[in-house]
Amino acid sequence: MSKKKVVVSLGHESLGYTTLEQWDAVKVTARALADLVEADYQLTITHSNGPQVSMIHKAMTELRRVYTDYTPAPMCVCSAMSQGYVGYDIQNALRAELLGRGISKPVSTLLTQVTVDPYDEAFYEPTKKIGRYMSREDADIEIKKGNYVQETPGKGYRRVVAAPKPIDIVEIEAIRTLSDADQVVIACGGGGIPVIEQKHALKGASAVIEKDAIAGKLAADLQADELIILTNVDYVYRNFSGENQTPILCMTIAEAEDAIAQGEFEAGTMLPKIEAAIAYLQKVPNGKVRITSMKCVKDAIREKAGTVITA
Amino acid sequence: MSKKKVVVSLGHESLGYTTLEQWDAVKVTARALADLVEADYQLTITHSNGPQVSMIHKAMTELRRVYTDYTPAPMCVCSAMSQGYVGYDIQNALRAELLGRGISKPVSTLLTQVTVDPYDEAFYEPTKKIGRYMSREDADIEIKKGNYVQETPGKGYRRVVAAPKPIDIVEIEAIRTLSDADQVVIACGGGGIPVIEQKHALKGASAVIEKDAIAGKLAADLQADELIILTNVDYVYRNFSGENQTPILCMTIAEAEDAIAQGEFEAGTMLPKIEAAIAYLQKVPNGKVRITSMKCVKDAIREKAGTVITA
Repeated sequence: MSKKKVVVSLGHESLGYTTLEQWDAVKVTARALADLVEADYQLTITHSNGPQVSMIHKAMTELRRVYTDYTPAPMCVCSAMSQGYVGYDIQNALRAELLGRGISKPVSTLLTQVTVDPYDEAFYEPTKKIGRYMSREDADIEIKKGNYVQETPGKGYRRVVAAPKPIDIVEIEAIRTLSDADQVVIACGGGGIPVIEQKHALKGASAVIEKDAIAGKLAADLQADELIILTNVDYVYRNFSGENQTPILCMTIAEAEDAIAQGEFEAGTMLPKIEAAIAYLQKVPNGKVRITSMKCVKDAIREKAGTVITA
Repeated sequence: MSKKKVVVSLGHESLGYTTLEQWDAVKVTARALADLVEADYQLTITHSNGPQVSMIHKAMTELRRVYTDYTPAPMCVCSAMSQGYVGYDIQNALRAELLGRGISKPVSTLLTQVTVDPYDEAFYEPTKKIGRYMSREDADIEIKKGNYVQETPGKGYRRVVAAPKPIDIVEIEAIRTLSDADQVVIACGGGGIPVIEQKHALKGASAVIEKDAIAGKLAADLQADELIILTNVDYVYRNFSGENQTPILCMTIAEAEDAIAQGEFEAGTMLPKIEAAIAYLQKVPNGKVRITSMKCVKDAIREKAGTVITA
């Protein structure tokens, strides 16, 4: 049996919020990932970075309060740092877990950028909250800089940035080369660093890319056999959190689109996952999407748990 | 003519100190690197990260002063962040410079760890200063945590860490795979994240690896045709800074060892470069080491500038 190429998308629950939490969380995550390697999957891994990039952004802001000779670190730089930080922990946890199971396999992290369209409509209505709560005065300073802010009553103001659609993964050749060499690659961390093409250069954009969107794009670009989205629920559900909540065992693109039209999936959580699944399956019609939790992944690949979506 | 494989080592002067300085500096650096690509060199790039990791370490310390719910970020985590940060800027500057010259070539950054020996004698006498100046009280807290500090009269105390020798580059397979695919790879940033093997796991070490030492190791591991060390002088000199300062055009390992014995090369600046050259040439006897400045590199590869060291 030849290896199945899979892109695995990891959410917040796989990583925790602080450096110590992440250190512990990745050990659990690594077990799920190692289960996939043992089941003869060839892995490319992508992950969220919301709390991590937020932590780094806060740190770089505090740095400048104390050491005024430092220049500000734009979001793209914080995002690059977060890819190094998260990749480091994931690759080490996975490497150790694999070695513990007698498997020696290269695992590495590739810094990844993703181009976005400067005219993406998301830029006109930023929705992703980032960074610390600010006073009205600090919020005004941000607005003067051309940034957007949003108030949370009683807590203060936070910057909001756009979540544009991914266009191209800049480092896709490097990712493909490592994947083709049967190595485990961690790439497109936090959705990738969003950049805008300006002639020959790439300019960091004040934005974040939805990590599920990039997982779907990556799986399509690699012509992966499967896209596995690991999250905090075992299945996709109809009437989620309602009295008659029902797990969906399998659905087609058409059924998924139908359910979206009926408002079944929550924006910001399940909806982007289903949208990523559809985008991938439209490019890879023989592909398969599994959405499940880390604890169920071993059963999911044996078709005993999780939701399966096919074209 | 087949391509020559080269490892290029970049020093502080290639990167600057702040985010803005780095943004400008890498554009100049990219021109020197693109000259090498145009001359049919296949590049693997490594770089220093002293000011960068120091900046991040300070930022993460300030973060914890303000947000006490965050856990401390150890040096290895700061180092991983710095690899992402520096690699991001170098790869973009080089990519843009190459595209400007009509060359489309994948350039990517691989997070890299390097194992060190926990019994390396460097751990018994740490010498590398890192982080901010501290008060006597804060220094005492560091000492209680088992860390080393050193006083600079009139300025305060700073942490000092060990600079052990590199043993193995953990991600060497991934680096080699990309290099063999004729892609430009940025790896082993800041000497690599120093780690100690503990059964199957890798534990971050309170240390930094000399970036010249890792450049020599990387060139040897890749069996590179050349190792090019870019620094702030055009040549290696005898009687450096003295009245009768003389550039060395070429030397053998034996001549270099002789000059070391005569105390010709300054510890911490030129000496580690010469030692890295010797270590590489002992593994790759047909190899060639060039030590020169960025502005001279184009002449250096035409044998018109720079110091050449051979076995």
